[in-house]
Amino acid sequence: MTDDIDGLIDTTGATDAATAGEPRERRGRGAASGREARRAARSRPKTAYAPYILRRVPTFDVLSEEGLQIIEANAETILEEIGIDFRDDAEALDLWREAGADVQGERVHIPRGLARKLIATAPAEFTQHARNPERSVQIGGKATVFAPVYGPPFVRGLDGGRRYATIEDFRNFVKLAYQSPALHHSGGTVCEPVDLPVNKRHLDMNYAHMRYSDKPFMGSVTHPLRALDTIEMAKILFGAEFVEHNTVITSLINANSPMVWDSTMLGALKNYARANQATIVTPFILAGAMSPVTVAGTLAQTLAESMAGMAFAQLCRPGAPVIFGSFASSISMQSGAPTFGTPEPALVLYGCAQLARRLGVPFRSGGSLCGSKTADAQAAFESANTLLPTVLGGVNFVLHAAGWLEGGLVSSYEKFVMDADQLGMMRTMLEGIDLSENGQAMDAIREVGPGAHFLGCAHTQANFETAFYRSSIADNNTYEQWLAEGERDANTRAGALAKKMLDEYEAPAIDPAVDEALVAFIAKKKAEFPDSNI
Amino acid sequence: MTDDIDGLIDTTGATDAATAGEPRERRGRGAASGREARRAARSRPKTAYAPYILRRVPTFDVLSEEGLQIIEANAETILEEIGIDFRDDAEALDLWREAGADVQGERVHIPRGLARKLIATAPAEFTQHARNPERSVQIGGKATVFAPVYGPPFVRGLDGGRRYATIEDFRNFVKLAYQSPALHHSGGTVCEPVDLPVNKRHLDMNYAHMRYSDKPFMGSVTHPLRALDTIEMAKILFGAEFVEHNTVITSLINANSPMVWDSTMLGALKNYARANQATIVTPFILAGAMSPVTVAGTLAQTLAESMAGMAFAQLCRPGAPVIFGSFASSISMQSGAPTFGTPEPALVLYGCAQLARRLGVPFRSGGSLCGSKTADAQAAFESANTLLPTVLGGVNFVLHAAGWLEGGLVSSYEKFVMDADQLGMMRTMLEGIDLSENGQAMDAIREVGPGAHFLGCAHTQANFETAFYRSSIADNNTYEQWLAEGERDANTRAGALAKKMLDEYEAPAIDPAVDEALVAFIAKKKAEFPDSNI
Repeated sequence: MTDDIDGLIDTTGATDAATAGEPRERRGRGAASGREARRAARSRPKTAYAPYILRRVPTFDVLSEEGLQIIEANAETILEEIGIDFRDDAEALDLWREAGADVQGERVHIPRGLARKLIATAPAEFTQHARNPERSVQIGGKATVFAPVYGPPFVRGLDGGRRYATIEDFRNFVKLAYQSPALHHSGGTVCEPVDLPVNKRHLDMNYAHMRYSDKPFMGSVTHPLRALDTIEMAKILFGAEFVEHNTVITSLINANSPMVWDSTMLGALKNYARANQATIVTPFILAGAMSPVTVAGTLAQTLAESMAGMAFAQLCRPGAPVIFGSFASSISMQSGAPTFGTPEPALVLYGCAQLARRLGVPFRSGGSLCGSKTADAQAAFESANTLLPTVLGGVNFVLHAAGWLEGGLVSSYEKFVMDADQLGMMRTMLEGIDLSENGQAMDAIREVGPGAHFLGCAHTQANFETAFYRSSIADNNTYEQWLAEGERDANTRAGALAKKMLDEYEAPAIDPAVDEALVAFIAKKKAEFPDSNI
Repeated sequence: MTDDIDGLIDTTGATDAATAGEPRERRGRGAASGREARRAARSRPKTAYAPYILRRVPTFDVLSEEGLQIIEANAETILEEIGIDFRDDAEALDLWREAGADVQGERVHIPRGLARKLIATAPAEFTQHARNPERSVQIGGKATVFAPVYGPPFVRGLDGGRRYATIEDFRNFVKLAYQSPALHHSGGTVCEPVDLPVNKRHLDMNYAHMRYSDKPFMGSVTHPLRALDTIEMAKILFGAEFVEHNTVITSLINANSPMVWDSTMLGALKNYARANQATIVTPFILAGAMSPVTVAGTLAQTLAESMAGMAFAQLCRPGAPVIFGSFASSISMQSGAPTFGTPEPALVLYGCAQLARRLGVPFRSGGSLCGSKTADAQAAFESANTLLPTVLGGVNFVLHAAGWLEGGLVSSYEKFVMDADQLGMMRTMLEGIDLSENGQAMDAIREVGPGAHFLGCAHTQANFETAFYRSSIADNNTYEQWLAEGERDANTRAGALAKKMLDEYEAPAIDPAVDEALVAFIAKKKAEFPDSNI
């Protein structure tokens, strides 16, 4: 058995949960190991917390080299011949002019190759630090980071139906993400707290992430000054010196597709980039409305728009961390409604992931997207049809990984815990097949032999705790037991789990002086100007 | 525009639905085309019937060459050192002895390399003929064929809850499969008609497939004589001469894992193989009970068991078509209940698909498996987590592709139509990205430009009918409209669709003389011996 254990740990480390998120190169065979450590590692459950996933399986690539070159050439044609609008931002136009672009009015024509050359200064991967160093995440390379849903003005669940979201809901989703081992990131606008004034709610939102979680988070982008507030609060939390030299905020910068960057997003992007904080530069595309009705057309446009934004971030500060983002859904050609979980957006995702890898930047896409109004079979099919391409395609930063419902209009409590369960499975999937001697299990097959069963054999007993992923949502009991328990469907069971988690929530510790400073900053800011919903 | 259309059809044929299931080599550029034909092809909806899918995207491979060699070596070790039981079948043991195996009692030790050598005579791909030649399917190679659920004694839906299945249910599922363009195969035991005697029900089951559908079907395996009855009925339907030289039946032969083949299955396998009819040689494994708790162990055992069965089929008749089958689920280590949609079985599937390709035989696995009691979010997550690996891994014959519920205990009407919708999506996925000029859509991007929308542009108008997959189940209407229509979830909508399809069902035409002969054969057989439930 000792040989088996050695084989297991040293060959793959597949069940060494505590280090699964650590780059393999750093894990020396002899470093701080020893037989006891291996035994201890082996007894840990496979679902233990890891700060992010490092994939051990290949990516699924749908485009050939020739196909990739066609898309890349088309993107360069869009940048050079059609151009990208940078609106209401004279500074942006100046920066582009200086960089060698042909600026006509607000339209920036970027010569072939210039954007790619500028993006070359962006890091291929970077660390986003969390206030708890054990929860800092790698973004890029073989890493996958899951973050919750972003943006919904409504919530569904806990006490019933669909209603406008409040700051209490916001805190609840931050808490659920903190409690879910499969979520690596606290996210940003986990729901839109519409009970607070628009011009001040970012302060309470930032505070919720900083106080009720210790995972990394996203910053405000709804106004350039709110981005600056976020950076100020991060300096209180991490120390100004630390923030100067490290990335502690990753923020979502959406293009106004097709081919427009507007001043709000540009303003936030500039402030974050100049503070060396990360931005996810994302064309938000409902194909058929904001891009052509074809996958290849949507790919070229997405690449062009994102390249323009990422290159602009490099103009603001060379080396600023950027993430190539793609949000692509299709629309119903009958009604114009966005649709999710259909095959075309998955093909866009696979293609974009390949394009991002060739560009040498981290990639954001996918999630657990769906159009369904409730967490029913439609929601689950659509979410799985998005999430599996997300992980197989090699997305590095996965926004909307949990809680997304109704096309992003609703943050759902039930869906959140269902999705978190699925995210846990994705980690096992990305770990691939354990080919250690223990994994090969030839001793078990020899011991059991033809016609017997494996339930009690030594190998099963030694591995049963970590053998298979255990779903927190699925009911695998007998039909009779399920009947006796009230025929609860997945939605009902998920609602009960979400309630239980929130009942059991305990906030992570924080330095009281830091907490006081954050509260004081917020109070000062709120007193500076009147509430407004603009 | 003419160039675009030419580009679309000639480069990829991606929307040329009527020929999408036809090997590309057979589709000459000039053959029966012309501008009118292209226009006609283009105007057809993308969801038109195709007899099977020919994938244009790569397979997703999780095992390296080294990993594959490890598994293959372990399988040979199982075959040679541990051995496989061939029980209650003296003829089988004689055949193995003659082939050079070391037979000890009923245990057959197959020398390294012998099974693989025998399997080399099996075809890499073959055609299973349907009585309607347009519905004949290719099994193997780049083809994917979807067949319905197989085996459940219960049904759920239409008129409410869960109940024992009847022959009327059986006919209903045959009809639904016939009506569903995404299902290429009528399957076999779409549910178990428990209102008919066990020793005669196969006659009515075969007849239902032959009369109410014109798609290919599976045969009875519950007794060697019932296999012979199936072959006799096929001879009436296709003509004896045709059946002698062509495969018209594909049947499911399950191993009694671990490492046992029993006389019932061997008897059916022998009869089908000797009649040159296809068998799916499938270890049915709940990992942790019938195989080790690890993926690599389950892979080696599955490969060994299936190789033993396929090699045995070649001993019965060299060249008999066989399919490498793998049914792998894991179990809950707490309760022993089978679980579905978890990552470990998906890894088994990916690995087995690679092993089958190296062996040079078609592969069967996957489907839309789930453990849920109803067609809720659990069912959908689990099904999608099985179906996506199924198509990405490159499964050729997909049993249980539609209708499977509650771990295979229940055939569900609602789930059937939901799954069929998903299967339609898989076709679009496997067609990959259209890189024709029309697909690249640069004219559309030029026409629309920054800040406008694509809804009315010429390219969108020319493509909107076939642009995106249209789900038959998903509700993408506004929340308000959904409320007004009664807040129906996917399960409710699917039930209504199943009812509507059955109401609208029309049987395919059949030669009245053939029909009479089938009915007469069944009457004669039923009169030969009394009813029995053994």
